[in-house]
Amino acid sequence: MAVTVSVWDMGRMIMADRVRVAILGATGYTALELIRILLNHPRVTLTALSSRREGQPAIAEVHPSLHGRLDLRCERLSPSEVAKRADFVFCALPHGASMAAVPELLAAGARVVDLSADYRLDDPAVYQTWYGLQHTDGDRMAATLYGLPELGVKGLPDADLVANPGCYTSTSILGLAPLLSRGMIEPSGIIIDAKSGVSGAGRVPKLETLYAECNESLSAYAVGGHRHTPEIDQVLTAVAGAPVEVVFTPHLVPMHRGILCTMYVRPRGEYTAEQMLEAMQEFYAERPFIRVVDHLPRTIDVSGTNYCDMTIRHNRGYAIVFSATDNLVKGAAGVAVQNFNLMAGFPEATGLLWAN
Amino acid sequence: MAVTVSVWDMGRMIMADRVRVAILGATGYTALELIRILLNHPRVTLTALSSRREGQPAIAEVHPSLHGRLDLRCERLSPSEVAKRADFVFCALPHGASMAAVPELLAAGARVVDLSADYRLDDPAVYQTWYGLQHTDGDRMAATLYGLPELGVKGLPDADLVANPGCYTSTSILGLAPLLSRGMIEPSGIIIDAKSGVSGAGRVPKLETLYAECNESLSAYAVGGHRHTPEIDQVLTAVAGAPVEVVFTPHLVPMHRGILCTMYVRPRGEYTAEQMLEAMQEFYAERPFIRVVDHLPRTIDVSGTNYCDMTIRHNRGYAIVFSATDNLVKGAAGVAVQNFNLMAGFPEATGLLWAN
Amino acid sequence: MAVTVSVWDMGRMIMADRVRVAILGATGYTALELIRILLNHPRVTLTALSSRREGQPAIAEVHPSLHGRLDLRCERLSPSEVAKRADFVFCALPHGASMAAVPELLAAGARVVDLSADYRLDDPAVYQTWYGLQHTDGDRMAATLYGLPELGVKGLPDADLVANPGCYTSTSILGLAPLLSRGMIEPSGIIIDAKSGVSGAGRVPKLETLYAECNESLSAYAVGGHRHTPEIDQVLTAVAGAPVEVVFTPHLVPMHRGILCTMYVRPRGEYTAEQMLEAMQEFYAERPFIRVVDHLPRTIDVSGTNYCDMTIRHNRGYAIVFSATDNLVKGAAGVAVQNFNLMAGFPEATGLLWAN
Amino acid sequence: MAVTVSVWDMGRMIMADRVRVAILGATGYTALELIRILLNHPRVTLTALSSRREGQPAIAEVHPSLHGRLDLRCERLSPSEVAKRADFVFCALPHGASMAAVPELLAAGARVVDLSADYRLDDPAVYQTWYGLQHTDGDRMAATLYGLPELGVKGLPDADLVANPGCYTSTSILGLAPLLSRGMIEPSGIIIDAKSGVSGAGRVPKLETLYAECNESLSAYAVGGHRHTPEIDQVLTAVAGAPVEVVFTPHLVPMHRGILCTMYVRPRGEYTAEQMLEAMQEFYAERPFIRVVDHLPRTIDVSGTNYCDMTIRHNRGYAIVFSATDNLVKGAAGVAVQNFNLMAGFPEATGLLWAN
Repeated sequence: MAVTVSVWDMGRMIMADRVRVAILGATGYTALELIRILLNHPRVTLTALSSRREGQPAIAEVHPSLHGRLDLRCERLSPSEVAKRADFVFCALPHGASMAAVPELLAAGARVVDLSADYRLDDPAVYQTWYGLQHTDGDRMAATLYGLPELGVKGLPDADLVANPGCYTSTSILGLAPLLSRGMIEPSGIIIDAKSGVSGAGRVPKLETLYAECNESLSAYAVGGHRHTPEIDQVLTAVAGAPVEVVFTPHLVPMHRGILCTMYVRPRGEYTAEQMLEAMQEFYAERPFIRVVDHLPRTIDVSGTNYCDMTIRHNRGYAIVFSATDNLVKGAAGVAVQNFNLMAGFPEATGLLWAN
Repeated sequence: MAVTVSVWDMGRMIMADRVRVAILGATGYTALELIRILLNHPRVTLTALSSRREGQPAIAEVHPSLHGRLDLRCERLSPSEVAKRADFVFCALPHGASMAAVPELLAAGARVVDLSADYRLDDPAVYQTWYGLQHTDGDRMAATLYGLPELGVKGLPDADLVANPGCYTSTSILGLAPLLSRGMIEPSGIIIDAKSGVSGAGRVPKLETLYAECNESLSAYAVGGHRHTPEIDQVLTAVAGAPVEVVFTPHLVPMHRGILCTMYVRPRGEYTAEQMLEAMQEFYAERPFIRVVDHLPRTIDVSGTNYCDMTIRHNRGYAIVFSATDNLVKGAAGVAVQNFNLMAGFPEATGLLWAN
Repeated sequence: MAVTVSVWDMGRMIMADRVRVAILGATGYTALELIRILLNHPRVTLTALSSRREGQPAIAEVHPSLHGRLDLRCERLSPSEVAKRADFVFCALPHGASMAAVPELLAAGARVVDLSADYRLDDPAVYQTWYGLQHTDGDRMAATLYGLPELGVKGLPDADLVANPGCYTSTSILGLAPLLSRGMIEPSGIIIDAKSGVSGAGRVPKLETLYAECNESLSAYAVGGHRHTPEIDQVLTAVAGAPVEVVFTPHLVPMHRGILCTMYVRPRGEYTAEQMLEAMQEFYAERPFIRVVDHLPRTIDVSGTNYCDMTIRHNRGYAIVFSATDNLVKGAAGVAVQNFNLMAGFPEATGLLWAN
Repeated sequence: MAVTVSVWDMGRMIMADRVRVAILGATGYTALELIRILLNHPRVTLTALSSRREGQPAIAEVHPSLHGRLDLRCERLSPSEVAKRADFVFCALPHGASMAAVPELLAAGARVVDLSADYRLDDPAVYQTWYGLQHTDGDRMAATLYGLPELGVKGLPDADLVANPGCYTSTSILGLAPLLSRGMIEPSGIIIDAKSGVSGAGRVPKLETLYAECNESLSAYAVGGHRHTPEIDQVLTAVAGAPVEVVFTPHLVPMHRGILCTMYVRPRGEYTAEQMLEAMQEFYAERPFIRVVDHLPRTIDVSGTNYCDMTIRHNRGYAIVFSATDNLVKGAAGVAVQNFNLMAGFPEATGLLWAN
C-alpha cells in the first residue's frame, strides 16, 4: 500500500460529510457514553465540549478512558458559542439548566437532542408538580417531540429539538407498548418494579452513591415519587388510548450499569404468553435494537449496547413483562444518537451497532 | 486474677449446662453461618460435623474463616452416629437427602432442626409437584411444626423436629402476616417481587453462580416455578384464613448476602399506610428480630444479623410492603438457632443478638 | 422463670461494673464499627456520641443498621462535655481535629483512644512533612504509646492516651515484625504492595469513592506519598533496631472491607519459609487475634473480625509475606477496643471474639 | 435512498474481500470476546464455531449477549472440517488440547492464531516442567512466533501459526520492555505484583470462582507457580539480552475484567522517572494500543478495549511501573485479532479501535 494512512484516521474512517457535534455538560457519565459512541460514528466530528468545570481541563483528564482518543477541552461556553461550533448539540445538563440553554441554542441555529427532563412532558403544570420548578419554556416543551424511535415518532427529520426519554421510562415503555397498543392488557393497575445500577444516579458525589453505601446493598428509593413516573404515564396513556397511571417502584442495585424492569399486568381476554410474545416480535419486527427473546433477560447481555432485551411470562393470572437495557446507552446516550441519526437523515443504527 | 483462663474459654464464656449440637451437611454456606452463630452461643457445644466430602478435612480447611476457632473435622457419619454425639442436630442437607436422614436421627433420640424443604409442606402431593420427588416420610412432614417463631408457633418446647422456613419464604411472610391476619389487605392478587444475593444459590459450583456471570448482571429466574411458592401460599393461607396464591418472582442480584422483597397488595377498606405500619409494630411488639422502620430498608443494614427490617408505602391504590433480611441468617441459620433456642428452652434470642 | 428479663437486657448481659464510653466523630464508618463492637462488650455502656452534624440526629438515622440497638443521639458536644459523661473516649475525628480535642479531653479527666494520625508519630517535624500541619500538641505526641498490642506495648494500664495505628500500618507491621525482630530478613529494600477496600477512604462523599468510579476498577494511588509510610518506617525501625524505609504502594480494590499486604523482603542467611513461618507462630503464640496459616490468606476470611491472617512463601530469593485484615476492625475499631481493654484492665479480647 | 440496506448489513458494512474465520472452543469468555470484536471487523466473516458442547446449540444460547447478532451454531467439528470452512482459525482451546488440534489445522491449510499456552515457549522441557504435560509438537512450538506485536515481531505476514501471549504476560512485558531493552533497569530482582479480575479464570464452574467466594474477597494465588512465569522470563530475557527471572505474584480481585501489574525494578544509573516515561513514549510512539500516561492507570479505563495504559513512579530507590489491560481483550482476544490482522495483511488496528 503506497498511501500511508495513520491508525487514527483509519480507525475513524473519516468520510467527506461529517456533521459537527457538541456536548453540553461533558463531565458526567452520560456525556462520556455519548463521546464513546460518537467517536465510532462515521458521520460525526466532535467539535466542542462544554462544562462549568474550572480551568478548561482536557476531556481526558475528566474521563481518563478517553486518553489519546479525543483531543478536546471542557470549555465554559455560552449556548450561542456552542452553536457557532456545532450543527447538532447534545444537551446533557441537569433539568432546569437545560431549559435555560435550549432556547438560546435553537435561536443560534443549532439542532438539539436534550437529554434532561425539561422537554419530555406535555404539561408545564405536571412538570412543576414533579420537578418543583416553574417551567420557563413551557410552550416549547409541550410541542417537543418525544424521542423514543421504536414508538414510530414522526417528524424527527424536520425537528430542531427532540426530548430524549428517561432511562427507566424507555425500558418500561418498550416492554409494555406492544401489549397496550393492541389492547392485550389492562391499562389500569400496571406495576413496574424497576431495578437500576448506580451510574444512573450520576457523577456528583453523594453519600448514597458511595461504593461503601451501595456495595452489598439493595433497596428501593423514591417510592411513589420518582420523576420518571409522569413521563411513563404520559407515553403509555398515548399508546393505550386510555388513561394509564403506573405504580412505579425503583430500586438501586450494586452494579455500575443496567436496568431491569419487571412489570406485572393483567391480560385482557384469553391471550397466551406465546401470543403476547408474538405481538412483541411483530411490533418491533423492523427495529434494530429490540430483541424479543425466549429466555429471561440479563442486564449483562445488553451492557454497553443499545439493545433492549425483553420477554414475557404468564403466572397465576398476571402477565409479567421483563425488559433490560443499559441505562447509559439505550437509556440515555444510545437512544440520543438514534434520535440524532433520524434528525440528521442517517440510518437509525449508524454508529450504534458497533457500540459494545 | 489467680485463675488462668485461656482466651478461647473466655471468648466462649463456658457455662455449666451446654447442649451438644451437630450439623449435617457442614460444607455449605448455611452450615458456615450456623457454626459462626453457634460459636457465640453460650449454651452450645459443637460436637460433630458431617459431610460426604472425602478425607475428613478439618472444618477450617473447608471454611478458612474458622481457622483457630473450631477444632472439628468433617466426618462421613451416619445419622445414628451423629445422634450419639449430639442432643440436637441441624440438618443442612439438600432436599431429598434430608427426608432420608431425619427419621433415623429422630429414632436415635436426637432432636432436629431441618433446614431443607423436606418437612415444610403439609401435603405430600404438593411436595411431589414442586420438588419432583415422592416424599418418603409424608406423614411426618404433614405433622411437623413450621418454624417461623414470629408467627407464634406453639409446641416448639416439646417438638423433636421443626422445619426451618425458606429464605424467600420468611422474608415474604414476615412482611405480609400482620396485614393479612388483621384483614387489612386482600388475600388475592398478592405480588412478591423478590431479590436475592448469590449465596442463596449454594456452594456447589454452577455456571450461573460464577462471579463472571453474576457480577454486573441482574435477572429474574424460575419465574412461576420457584419452590418457595407453595410454602408461601401455605403459610399465608393459614394466616389469612382464606386461600392465598401469590405471584412470586425471584431475581438474582450481584451481592453475596441479602434478600429484599417488594410486595404489592390491595388495601381493604380505608386503611392508611400509617395504620398499616402501626399494625406491623403491634404484631411484632415483643419480637426481638423484627424492626418496623420508617425508612426504606436496605439489605446492608441487616447483613450478618438475624433482623428483618420492614416498612410500608401506599401508592396509587396499592400498599407496597418492603422487607429485608440476610438470607443466610434470618433466612436460614439464624432462624434455625431461634427455633433451636425455643426447643431447648433457652430465651429465643440467645446467641443471636451478638451475631453481626 | 419468674423474673422477666427483656430481650434487650438479656442480649446485653448487663453486669455490675461497666465503664462509660463515648465516641467523638460518630458518623463515620469507623465509629459505626466501634458501636457494633461495643454493643457486644460486656463491660461497656455507651453514654455519648458526638458529631458536628446538624440537628442532633438519632444515631440510627445516621447508621440505619443500628435501629433498635442503640438509643443515643449525635450531639454537638465539647470535649469537656463528653468527658463529663464518659470515663473513656474513642476519638474518631480526622487528623488535625483530634489534636485540638484530645488535650481538653485529658484535662477533663477522660482516658482516650485516639484513632486519628495525630498521636502516632514521634517527631512533630515528620508529622508536619507528611500531614502538612504544624502539630499543636507535639510533646504529648512524642510521649504517646503506640497501640499495637501484638508488639508487646508496655504501660497501657496506666496510660491516659493511646494512639491507634493506621489500617495499612498494622497489617504491614504485623506481618513483618516477627522476621525483622529476629533478624531473619534484611531491613532495607522492603516492598509493601498493599490493597484495600473502599471503606478505608471514609464516608465523606468524593468522586473517587463513588460506586461507579470504583466498581470494576483497580488502581494504585498516593504512590510514594501515603501518610501511613512514616508510621510504618517508625515502628519497623524500632522493631528492627536499624533504619527501615519501606517502599509502600497502596491500591484501591472494588470491595467494601479488607486489606491485603503482599510484602517482598530479602531473607538473611539461610532461613527457610518453614522456619520463618515457625518464627511467626512463636512470636504470636499467645496472641488471640493473629492466625499464622499455611494457605494464602483471603480478606473474606477475616471480614468483620479482629483477626490478622498471615503466611509466607519463598520465591526466587525473596520471602513474600501475606497479611490480611478487615481495615475497619483490626485496622481501626477492633484494635482500638483491644487497646481500651488493656487500658481498662479487661482481658485483651473482651468483646472482640464475638465480633464477626 | 433507493437501495434498501438491511440494518444488519449496514451494521456489518459488508465489503468485497472478507476472510473466512473460525473459532475453536467457542463457549468460553475469550471466544465471546473474539466474536464481539470480529463482528465489528470489516474484513472478516465468521464461518464456523466449534465446541464439544452437546446438541450443537446456537451460539446465542451459549452467549445470550449475541442474540440477533450472529446466526451460527456450536458444532462438534474436527480440525480438518474447520479448516475447510475457514482461512483463519482462532484456537481458544485449553492447553494440551491445542497442540492436538493445531497440526491438523495447519496440515489442512488453515492459518492459526493459538490462544493457548501450547506454542508460547521455546523449550519443550520448560513446557513439561510448568504444565506437567509432554509436548507432542515440540519442534513446532520452538519455531512459532510469539505474537506480541508491540515488541516488533517480524515475519507475521508469512506465518501460518502465531502463539498469542498470556494475559499477565503481555501486561507485564509491555510495561518493562522499554526500560529493559534500553538498559535503564536491572534485569535481576524484578518483582511483578499482578492483580486480575475473575474472568481470567475461565468459564468452567469451580468453587474458587463462584460469586460468593470472590466477592468481597482478595487473595494471592499460585505464588511461585503460576504458568505465565516462564513465559515472562523467556520474553524479558530476549528483550534484556540477559537472563531474567521475575518474582511473579498473581492476585484474584473481585471484578470481572482487568489486570493491573505493579512492578518494582531497580534503576540503572541515574535515570529519572521522567526519562523513563519518555523512553516508554518513544518505544511505543507508533503503537496504536499503548497509552503512556502521567496518571496512575485504572483498569476501568481500559475495560472493553485493546489499550494498555502504563506509567512509572520512582520511590526510595525503586522504579515502579504500572500497567493496566483488559485481560479478555489486550490480554487475549484483542491481541489475537492484532496478530490476525498482521498475518492477513490488514492494518494492525483494523476492527479494534471500535471495540469498547
